[in-house]
Amino acid sequence: MSNDDEEMVVTPWTVKGKVDYDRLIELFGTERITPELKERMYEVAGEKHFMLDRDLFFSHRDLGWILDEYDKGNKFTLYTGRGPSGQVHIGHLVPWIFTKWMQEKFKARLYFQITNDEKYFFEQDLSLDQVRKLAYDNILDILAVGFEPEDTYVLQDIEHIDLMYEIAVRVAKRVTFSTARAVFGFENSMNIGGIWFPAMQAVPAFIHSWVYGTNTPCIIPCAIDQDPHWRVTRDVAERLGFLKPASIQNRFLPPLTGGSKMSSSEPMSAVLTTDTPKMAKKKVMNAFTGGRDSADEQKRLGANPDVCSVFKYYEFLFMPDDKDLADIEKKCRGGEILCGECKQILAPMMIEFLDKHQAAREDVKDRIHEFSAGRLREDLKR
Amino acid sequence: MSNDDEEMVVTPWTVKGKVDYDRLIELFGTERITPELKERMYEVAGEKHFMLDRDLFFSHRDLGWILDEYDKGNKFTLYTGRGPSGQVHIGHLVPWIFTKWMQEKFKARLYFQITNDEKYFFEQDLSLDQVRKLAYDNILDILAVGFEPEDTYVLQDIEHIDLMYEIAVRVAKRVTFSTARAVFGFENSMNIGGIWFPAMQAVPAFIHSWVYGTNTPCIIPCAIDQDPHWRVTRDVAERLGFLKPASIQNRFLPPLTGGSKMSSSEPMSAVLTTDTPKMAKKKVMNAFTGGRDSADEQKRLGANPDVCSVFKYYEFLFMPDDKDLADIEKKCRGGEILCGECKQILAPMMIEFLDKHQAAREDVKDRIHEFSAGRLREDLKR
Repeated sequence: MSNDDEEMVVTPWTVKGKVDYDRLIELFGTERITPELKERMYEVAGEKHFMLDRDLFFSHRDLGWILDEYDKGNKFTLYTGRGPSGQVHIGHLVPWIFTKWMQEKFKARLYFQITNDEKYFFEQDLSLDQVRKLAYDNILDILAVGFEPEDTYVLQDIEHIDLMYEIAVRVAKRVTFSTARAVFGFENSMNIGGIWFPAMQAVPAFIHSWVYGTNTPCIIPCAIDQDPHWRVTRDVAERLGFLKPASIQNRFLPPLTGGSKMSSSEPMSAVLTTDTPKMAKKKVMNAFTGGRDSADEQKRLGANPDVCSVFKYYEFLFMPDDKDLADIEKKCRGGEILCGECKQILAPMMIEFLDKHQAAREDVKDRIHEFSAGRLREDLKR
Repeated sequence: MSNDDEEMVVTPWTVKGKVDYDRLIELFGTERITPELKERMYEVAGEKHFMLDRDLFFSHRDLGWILDEYDKGNKFTLYTGRGPSGQVHIGHLVPWIFTKWMQEKFKARLYFQITNDEKYFFEQDLSLDQVRKLAYDNILDILAVGFEPEDTYVLQDIEHIDLMYEIAVRVAKRVTFSTARAVFGFENSMNIGGIWFPAMQAVPAFIHSWVYGTNTPCIIPCAIDQDPHWRVTRDVAERLGFLKPASIQNRFLPPLTGGSKMSSSEPMSAVLTTDTPKMAKKKVMNAFTGGRDSADEQKRLGANPDVCSVFKYYEFLFMPDDKDLADIEKKCRGGEILCGECKQILAPMMIEFLDKHQAAREDVKDRIHEFSAGRLREDLKR
């Protein structure tokens, strides 16, 4: 079901309406990723990345500065995160896959924040036990993406609060309720934990410099809806003696049911990482496409990949090779392929992807501790 | 200088105007400590305590219930605290001395919270380094009162956040900004740390039951201005599966300069625990009294101990024996003693008290760790 008629609302907790990415750049005051910036990334990486090339990552703050610093030998840290309020779906993996690429190519340490406190504060009906179970489950998905253990630090807010609280306290003193309300739209009915939380979300941007007494740049790959957090973080950074974190922001992988952003809470809108092959196939076969009303019409007039969720899956994940993507697009527009046939191509790709991902999930189960930010405690003591 | 003409305002962060304690009981919805309740306390203790007998502790919540539970064999914990925003003065010691008596007589474990995060949030110009220095210094004063190490757990919010955050998170989810604003008078200019803080102040009321998996009653001896915190704490307690904390509340020792509450920030208004004998004597000799304009007049008409800060010192601290107090009161009202003479009696008492207190402060310096709430970590693991 499409929700494109609603007015656009994009905050860290709500995405509604048709998302106009150009308008978001204006609204949020971020910058478009230019061809020059892409080239600079590729030069360091020694290869292109289709997510950058296709403008799936499309917006940034201070990416040029991050690359300048890198060129000078001043390496950056990566910071991204996950709020464990539900199961992970395929769309969540998009920024993580790109983050892994950046980790590998730039030899960067990654801080991966699990905001278990946030989800407890913001989801009325979620207990802490439920959040903990979801966090464990989500961490399996994160690690299944293949991050380097020695360069990956999973920070769980409640479990690692001893490493985080003092930084959060310093941030919190410098953010008024007025500011928080203006940036996040908090009402007076918001609980005092939710109001506090933006201070916690700032912490991983600073924790490396804090622990090691350095002045290390940080870049945050994330979906664009999280940008308001970094505005607050950037506002306070210098007053705390830290560098402003940069960011690089991606579009949402649209729901299989049409509309703007997938949701784990609408069962058919997203393929979950733990779906069975049968369920995954069912979701793909039921997906919203840009097809015509009849096969005859489609053969005659062609279909529209621009609004098709199946095509988005190819673009975002399953056809990293531009030739493959161009080929399927041509067939689609030319009426050479029907939507049912196209879905029959995606379904086995999806099933294979899930199969590998699920094996990797199993594989990391006894290695979670290797990624724990608890390791920072030893470094803090030194 | 008296500030009695202002309208009364009593919150955890502001005390202004002449404090009307009867009105506070009404406003806050607490209860007066009855002669029956005093008797029950004395029965257990095997002795009276002048602070209770003289209604310096005058108000409570659920004290009867605490004693009922005690009689049934269900012991309580004590919880009090200190916000380290300045040096400790003699007035701060009043509730601590009474708390020590309760600890001893009821064999109760004491949780003593040092709210270093609070003072950083609420004092614009205070750095965390300054708060830390003050906290260390204040802890010396606390321990100099003579609490039992094996039954005293000093909880510092930032240092012991790993023991406190999860409880605070559970509290915070259940307190809206509307409630916090109504109870504490927060403006929109309040920082998000200050708004969060009431959740932290609730924690020591629950931490014992949390760590040991018990259902242990808790009573909070404190100055009456802190009561709004416990209203919030009591409101959420049962929803979190904890017992509501009881409380027993004291009046303020008035400033030497007249008015309602002493302040470390007005130098002559309070004797600091670290004052030299010379400084202490100077403050006493300059104190506001209920004396007449001339010696002749005073000898003829007598003076008024009801408004005299010197007399309050006798009442609150230096004349625990009622006969001594009655004697000085009679002399004062009868004009048998002039204020200067009366101050000459107080000054050496004050100096002797400070001398002992300062020696005790030195004495605890290398034993602070024995009182640390960090010991709870071991118990949590079990």
